[in-house]
Amino acid sequence: MNANATSLTGAILIGARDLAADRSFRAVDPARDSAIEPAFAEAGPAHVAEAAALAAAAFPAYRATAPEARAAFLEAIASEIEALGDVLVERAGLESGLPAARLTGERARTTGQLRLFASWVRAGGADEPRLDSPQPERKPLPRADLRLRHIGVGPVAVFGASNFPLAFSVAGGDTASALAAGCPVIVKGHPAHPGTSELVGRAIRRAVAACGLPEGVFSLLTGTSHELGSALVADPRIAAVGFTGSRAGGLALARIAAGREVPIPVYAEMSSINPVFLLPEALASRAEALAAGFVGSLTLGAGQFCTNPGLVIALDSPGLDRFLAAASAALGGAPAATMLTPGIARAYAGGVAALEESGAAQTLARGRADGGANACRPALFVTDGAAFRATPALAREVFGASALVVRCADVEDLLAVARAVEGQLTATLQLDEGDHALAAALLPVLEEKAGRILANGWPTGVEVCHAMVHGGPFPATSDVRTTSVGTLAIRRFLRPVCYQDLPAALLPAAVADGNPLGLPRLVDGAAQPGAAP
Amino acid sequence: MNANATSLTGAILIGARDLAADRSFRAVDPARDSAIEPAFAEAGPAHVAEAAALAAAAFPAYRATAPEARAAFLEAIASEIEALGDVLVERAGLESGLPAARLTGERARTTGQLRLFASWVRAGGADEPRLDSPQPERKPLPRADLRLRHIGVGPVAVFGASNFPLAFSVAGGDTASALAAGCPVIVKGHPAHPGTSELVGRAIRRAVAACGLPEGVFSLLTGTSHELGSALVADPRIAAVGFTGSRAGGLALARIAAGREVPIPVYAEMSSINPVFLLPEALASRAEALAAGFVGSLTLGAGQFCTNPGLVIALDSPGLDRFLAAASAALGGAPAATMLTPGIARAYAGGVAALEESGAAQTLARGRADGGANACRPALFVTDGAAFRATPALAREVFGASALVVRCADVEDLLAVARAVEGQLTATLQLDEGDHALAAALLPVLEEKAGRILANGWPTGVEVCHAMVHGGPFPATSDVRTTSVGTLAIRRFLRPVCYQDLPAALLPAAVADGNPLGLPRLVDGAAQPGAAP
Repeated sequence: MNANATSLTGAILIGARDLAADRSFRAVDPARDSAIEPAFAEAGPAHVAEAAALAAAAFPAYRATAPEARAAFLEAIASEIEALGDVLVERAGLESGLPAARLTGERARTTGQLRLFASWVRAGGADEPRLDSPQPERKPLPRADLRLRHIGVGPVAVFGASNFPLAFSVAGGDTASALAAGCPVIVKGHPAHPGTSELVGRAIRRAVAACGLPEGVFSLLTGTSHELGSALVADPRIAAVGFTGSRAGGLALARIAAGREVPIPVYAEMSSINPVFLLPEALASRAEALAAGFVGSLTLGAGQFCTNPGLVIALDSPGLDRFLAAASAALGGAPAATMLTPGIARAYAGGVAALEESGAAQTLARGRADGGANACRPALFVTDGAAFRATPALAREVFGASALVVRCADVEDLLAVARAVEGQLTATLQLDEGDHALAAALLPVLEEKAGRILANGWPTGVEVCHAMVHGGPFPATSDVRTTSVGTLAIRRFLRPVCYQDLPAALLPAAVADGNPLGLPRLVDGAAQPGAAP
Repeated sequence: MNANATSLTGAILIGARDLAADRSFRAVDPARDSAIEPAFAEAGPAHVAEAAALAAAAFPAYRATAPEARAAFLEAIASEIEALGDVLVERAGLESGLPAARLTGERARTTGQLRLFASWVRAGGADEPRLDSPQPERKPLPRADLRLRHIGVGPVAVFGASNFPLAFSVAGGDTASALAAGCPVIVKGHPAHPGTSELVGRAIRRAVAACGLPEGVFSLLTGTSHELGSALVADPRIAAVGFTGSRAGGLALARIAAGREVPIPVYAEMSSINPVFLLPEALASRAEALAAGFVGSLTLGAGQFCTNPGLVIALDSPGLDRFLAAASAALGGAPAATMLTPGIARAYAGGVAALEESGAAQTLARGRADGGANACRPALFVTDGAAFRATPALAREVFGASALVVRCADVEDLLAVARAVEGQLTATLQLDEGDHALAAALLPVLEEKAGRILANGWPTGVEVCHAMVHGGPFPATSDVRTTSVGTLAIRRFLRPVCYQDLPAALLPAAVADGNPLGLPRLVDGAAQPGAAP
């Protein structure tokens, strides 16, 4: 890797061109509360229009790429990111305050995700072809030859998240799944990590060039203004939006998308407090171990995970008292970790203060106050079921290492609390065998509340695989029908097209006679395997 | 079938109860322009609330039905509809003006559709299970046991269409696919055929009872007010909406859905003029046959199909002149057929008059004017490519047997016209082998414009099968990612749920060890077949 690949220019990356702007901004090192060089160009509506025009121009050629070519492109992006070496982890750490070990793991997750989508595209996961045989002799009417494949919806706008500067940002899950679906991508980089974004953006650009793809397949717009994001979602050439961030931000983009002349889908992952149910037998048998696991999950990465366990629900019992004592002790000794941005640290402190002053919950424990600038001092609160159900503010997400324990009077109270929570990314059951009856009663409720249900684990940690669901009912996401992690995420950016009686010479390869791409296909309703990979 | 099953009461069907209302309305026989007995209760917001409460109460039990039970229910509906006998076809004919032969075919399509969804549910098409094996030894972190299945999104509101009183109405495709997905259904019956709706609604109710399902699985609200539909879409217990009808109606419902505290998806099929491209060689070799086929498709059912060919695009040529002469002659002799409602007949006459007076198109031919009340007098117009592109009003749907031919100066003009059309349900190519090069240039454009591309056929006639797409870009539908006909339609009403490390005793059967339901499942990314059906 030569020096140019890892030096930062602060430019806006529109296809193959570097563009400047009148205004600029700098990233902030949250640990030192100080600005970091260089200055980054502040993209505006004119840049959106240029990027969107390039993306629209690139779409026909890009969506026509064969699975092998598209998979090779995804793999090339992964390799280019790896080739950036330590510079990427260092810059991401400087801009996010996250430790190098975490970022090294996140980088592996990012490249692994790109390679998983590559394998899924090769396995026909983008095309999902279906063929129905003609029945020329059928009475009263013959049946035509019908073949279906999926194609990309068009250029996709991706909003990078602050809390995963690699895995949910420029080359994160939204970008990987949209590119896998055959859609050009325009990323609106998160202003908290513009340097990390530029490094990864240039890696993608190199992969575009190396694979001989049209430049408009990828652009990166950096900026701090709401105007930039609004212009991107409103652009008529954008066909779908992926977003991870705040509830207010996601809802604002969804409103813009719904108000367009041609409305488009917004996949916004927004807000989740991830309830954990500590069932009685599990509490009785291992309250202290549960407390240790809980505090570890709560304080991991300063609690800055979408799946952070912010709500604990249990029956009033000696086991719960033991859990609270152990959790309070562990939390009291938990160090204050630097948060991603000064704004996030302020919002966290404000959310915790509001709970402290609410009168509806009692403060059980706070973590150590010895962190530096923008540190997150963990917090644990307790309330009862009636107060929780009567006080919607208690169920609001406090982004960071803050959790609320709800002490329930009885099973009915516990089920009522479960029914009262909003939509969630996850719900967790801590249970022993003697808890199965209660768990069976809870499960149908939780299935309607969350996208993922865990037993005897902690919700932080989202496996990238085929069976993952990182999604859930509103307000966890704006679209309950899908996931933003795992191979199923590709369906967000696909649409079906049917070909009726098209001459063989004109049929796309995915649905052609003889299955030239070797894809698994549904033929007359029966799954037919593809060529072995 | 006893007499009670086929006698009409005019009641609102809320679960198992018949409800009355303060106000009522009657259907109109469009052929005689006269009201038909009996009076039907005018449902209002209070009925919506009752039906929604019952549907929400029924949802947990209904979505938990095993594939076999749900499939048997769908088949029971089909049998109950058949058991209604001639009364159904007679009443539907009286209310719609459609001939008995068409309605008999439509009834077969309706019952066949229910049975296809039954077979698809048995084949795992609702659950679509995915399993990823645990990897306890993986470094640096073990992988959990992850299993995914799909469940229904919740109660679905279905708006019956006027133009298919059976196949897109009370027990039509939206209802069949929502029930197949495990969602209770509340139908807002189309006020043009309330008697047909009541007959079919009672058939569904009998199937609900015979299958031992909770009564709230199905309700039928009949009424004429916008207030009724608005209240239904706004009800917080409704999770998704299926609609077939006008662009204005679909957009109004989409706005209500997007403005809810918890937004929900609206699958609205709205507006399509279904361009037909007559390529030069085909025109030269068989202009007269094309004209005959075209006029047959255009005037079928008084042109009242979503897929009616309302736009014909061809290069200026002697072949096109022959086509126009033959089509004009055939259309001039086409009888005036009764339209579905007086309102539709008025809108058709107004749309044709607007084209006649637009100055942007010339009237080529009109059909016979000897129809009775509310007859559709077919109309054929011609314009050129430049005028078409400059006059958006020419591309607006005129629901009924009206079509516009666009005479293009050259291939560039023809491609420009293709790019200028809005989103469509279908696009058709009439082509011979010598037209393949031009067709290959058109195909990528058409794939981005339409959900289904036909060659050498006519778009009317939508096969119900696995590879069908009855959908398309806006404004053909409000959601390009799906179809309202065929087994893929079930995905509109499903959402994925993931189970992580759940004890075997608590796992749903669809993802349980040993595959007790015998469903095809994706295991570690590879398709595994189910038990043979």
